[in-house]
Order: sequence, then C-alpha cells, then structure tokens
Amino acid sequence: MIIIGEKINGTRKAVAQAIRSRDAAFIRELAGSQADAGAAYLDVNAGTAPDREPDDMVWLLKTVQEACNVPICLDSANPAAIEAGLKEVKHKPLINSVSGEKNRIDGVLPLALKYKTNLILLALDDQGIPNTIEGRMKVVHNLVGLAKDEGMEEEQLFIDPLVTAISTGTTNAMITFDTIREIRSRYPNVHVTCGLSNISFGMPLRSIINKYFMVMAAQAGLDSAIINPNDRGLTEAMMASELLMGQDRHCLNFNRAFRANLIGPIQETK
Amino acid sequence: MIIIGEKINGTRKAVAQAIRSRDAAFIRELAGSQADAGAAYLDVNAGTAPDREPDDMVWLLKTVQEACNVPICLDSANPAAIEAGLKEVKHKPLINSVSGEKNRIDGVLPLALKYKTNLILLALDDQGIPNTIEGRMKVVHNLVGLAKDEGMEEEQLFIDPLVTAISTGTTNAMITFDTIREIRSRYPNVHVTCGLSNISFGMPLRSIINKYFMVMAAQAGLDSAIINPNDRGLTEAMMASELLMGQDRHCLNFNRAFRANLIGPIQETK
Repeated sequence: MIIIGEKINGTRKAVAQAIRSRDAAFIRELAGSQADAGAAYLDVNAGTAPDREPDDMVWLLKTVQEACNVPICLDSANPAAIEAGLKEVKHKPLINSVSGEKNRIDGVLPLALKYKTNLILLALDDQGIPNTIEGRMKVVHNLVGLAKDEGMEEEQLFIDPLVTAISTGTTNAMITFDTIREIRSRYPNVHVTCGLSNISFGMPLRSIINKYFMVMAAQAGLDSAIINPNDRGLTEAMMASELLMGQDRHCLNFNRAFRANLIGPIQETK
Repeated sequence: MIIIGEKINGTRKAVAQAIRSRDAAFIRELAGSQADAGAAYLDVNAGTAPDREPDDMVWLLKTVQEACNVPICLDSANPAAIEAGLKEVKHKPLINSVSGEKNRIDGVLPLALKYKTNLILLALDDQGIPNTIEGRMKVVHNLVGLAKDEGMEEEQLFIDPLVTAISTGTTNAMITFDTIREIRSRYPNVHVTCGLSNISFGMPLRSIINKYFMVMAAQAGLDSAIINPNDRGLTEAMMASELLMGQDRHCLNFNRAFRANLIGPIQETK
C-alpha cells in the first residue's frame, strides 16, 4: 500500500497557524512522524489564501524536506502554488490533483506534463461526483485518455474513484469498490488511491468503519491511500489485508509490526 | 450473515464435562447467550465417544431446545448420533457435515435426503484438503451434483470452502476467497459458510486476523459463518461489512448495534 500522509494540510487549523507563524518545529514533527510510519509521499497543502499560497508552499516544502527524505504530494487547486512547489521539490513529486473540471485540466495537467510528475486524477467533473460507476468511469476514461495522449505512462497516474458517505447512500461504498475494480480491469498499471475517511461521515464508530472500508477497498484493488500514517487502526487494517491477500511473504511484516508494537493492543514498555 | 453458533461442542473440555454430569444449566446458558446474540443455528456436537454419543446428543438437544427456539446444526461424524438427533429436533436442522470422503457420503448424505434437512458440504475428500481452487471445486462439483441428483435444492446446501492457516502458506486466505467466488458464480443459490479461526493458527493477534478475514470472505461471497456469536470483534466485522456492502438499509442495524453497546469500545453502564 502506497501511503500518502495527509497531516500537513493548511486547511487544518493547527497547521494553518504553524504556517502563518513559520513554526518550523511543528511542521518538521508532522513530517518526521509520518516518514517514520512509512509514508511513501507527504501531502503538502499550504492553505487557500491566493496571495500567500505560493510563498507558504515554498516555505513548507523547505521545512518538510529538511526533516525527512520522502517525496512530496503537492496539494493545491492553484497552479501558481503548484508550480512554485515544483521548482522546490527534491524527488519526483505527485500532484494532487486534476479532475474532469475544466479549470483543473487547463491549469494543472500542463504542469504535470511539463515537470513529468506523477498525478492524482479525481473521478469528478464540473457536474460534481457522478453517483454511478459508469459516470465515474466516463470521467476516468477522459482523464486517462488526455494524460496518455500527452505521453504520460499509466504508472504515473493515481486514480481516485472518490468516496462518499455511507450515511447518505446505502450503496456508496459499493460504488467505490466497483469503480476500483473497473479501473483495475481497464488500466492494469495505474495506481488507485483515495481519501477514505469520508465513508464514515455522519456515523458513530468512524475509525471502525474506516478500517473495514480500507480492507474491502484493498481487496477490490486499491493500492494507495491518503491517510494519517500514524493511525494505529488503519495500520492494523493495512497489515492484515496485505497478510491475507498473500502479499506478506512468510507473514514477516505482520509479525514484525506486532513485535514492534505497531499493531494490536498497545503494550506498555517496561 | 447466517451465524452458526459454535459453542456447544463436546470436544471442548468444559462442554464434555457438562455433558457427562448432565449439567443442564451450563448447556442452557451456552444456548441462550448464542440465541440472544442472533445465532440462526446452534451447532450441537456431543463429543466422540461412540457408545455414548447418540444418548448424549438426545440429552443435549432436549436441553438446548428447552432454552431457546433456534434451529439446530447437528454436528457429528457418526450417522447413528445424527439420526438420533434428527428424531428429536423441532425445526428443520442443518447437518454438519458431508465431505467427499466415502464414509461421509455413504453414511450421512442418506440422512439429509431422508429427513429433508439442510446440509453442510466440505471441500475435502479422502486425500485431504486440496491446496488448489480447482481441487476444492472438483470436490464441491461432485458433492453438489450428488445432492441435486437426489432432489436437494441449492438453498439447502451450505458449502464450506475450508480455511487453512496463513502461517503455513502465504496464499491460503486467497485460495479460500477465490474458492468462495467460484462457488458463488457456479451455484448462485447455495449458502457459503466456514469456520474461520483456522486462518490465524500460529499467528499473534489472532482475533484481529479473524475479523479482517471475515470481512474479506464476506466480500467474496460468504453468507454464513460458524463462529462464537458472542465474539465482539466478529460482530463488529459482520456489522461493518454488511453496512459497507449495501445490506444495511439506512445504516439502521449498525446504528442500533452501536446504541445497544454491541460494537465499538465497551461502554460502562451507569
């Protein structure tokens, strides 16, 4: 599972404050803890103030890259902020994101092509999130087609089938699972990712629902997730699903995670 | 999920003692607690002493049926004990089980036909448990064919794809999941059941592995399980998978289970 750490996000209040006050220690801690937990990318979102965002993005990136050596997922709707970030990153980044919305296609896709980055594609367009598998696949086909026509490889693409709350529609999880299966069968070499916590919005026991959703999505073909890598429940779900899907040779990773006290009931150190 | 409660099993030491001493209160408690937790069948196994088993089975059944009104799953390798039980049950029972082993086919299948019961079919034969999907399906095809030739309906059949320990083979869970999918696609109206705790034999954090295995098996098509219905973790896994598979209209069952303190962190009553 390719984990994209979600914690450095300027739309969260504590992060927004740290950005405004240039609190590098706070940001470095968020970066380091996610890197230690095995994040493959760190999502970096500098908030939504159009005048400050490019400068904030550059400061954030410098701070994060001092703290760890993990590739960056540049998260913004603002092409200027993304391009400012692209000039700063040390490793091949992931851009979050292009959707079927015209302004994203026109503003962000050219940057992914110019800088040869990896790219998250969202299955929504100017009409919103389609509530059928067919509707989401139509957006996906269009976006993958555009990207491949311009020379991108499937391996560069992270497709997000989108997740909507089960509390607003009984079949909402199934729509996501079936869209994942459809993506996997049509584009075998792409990655499939999602931010999964939306599934449990409006429900009790959200962390429990999120864990089982992750396992079922993994079984459908999800190979990446935008999550808090320090979430013990999701770590447990990820390790267990890899174990059961035959991806954990000799059960080594699961046993190691158990002995390192990363999964299961928290063991007090003596 | 059709739950078959596994606790009244004479191969367990405490149950064997209760049978020998005719401790009806102990057995009634095991029956009542499983019934209250929503078991659709109660497995009843009277142990393996050939001389005593038929009498023990009859006593057990009378005791269980005094305590609750749940159909019985008659669990024995001994046709005489099963037939003694068949004469005693109040509701249409399930017989556990016939396999591809010749003595089971000859000894137990005729009883299921004569008494028109439901029947568990195990995907193993005189050579043991096949370690391929094809091998298990060959046994299943043979058994389903025999049963249907004699006039049984698919709805009467509970097919057990069998579960072997992930610690002894990295792909063991996937073999079970893929066998479940194959059964579902070939015989759409049968039930698919299994005793799932074998999956985690030899591993740490067995209850965690069992929970995720159940959810992944449900996604593959499992619609029944032989478990302890009072296991809070498995209840959680079952409720979450039904929620996410679109089988919980308006999320009512999940919310109700939460409010009844059946899932999630145990809440102290005031």
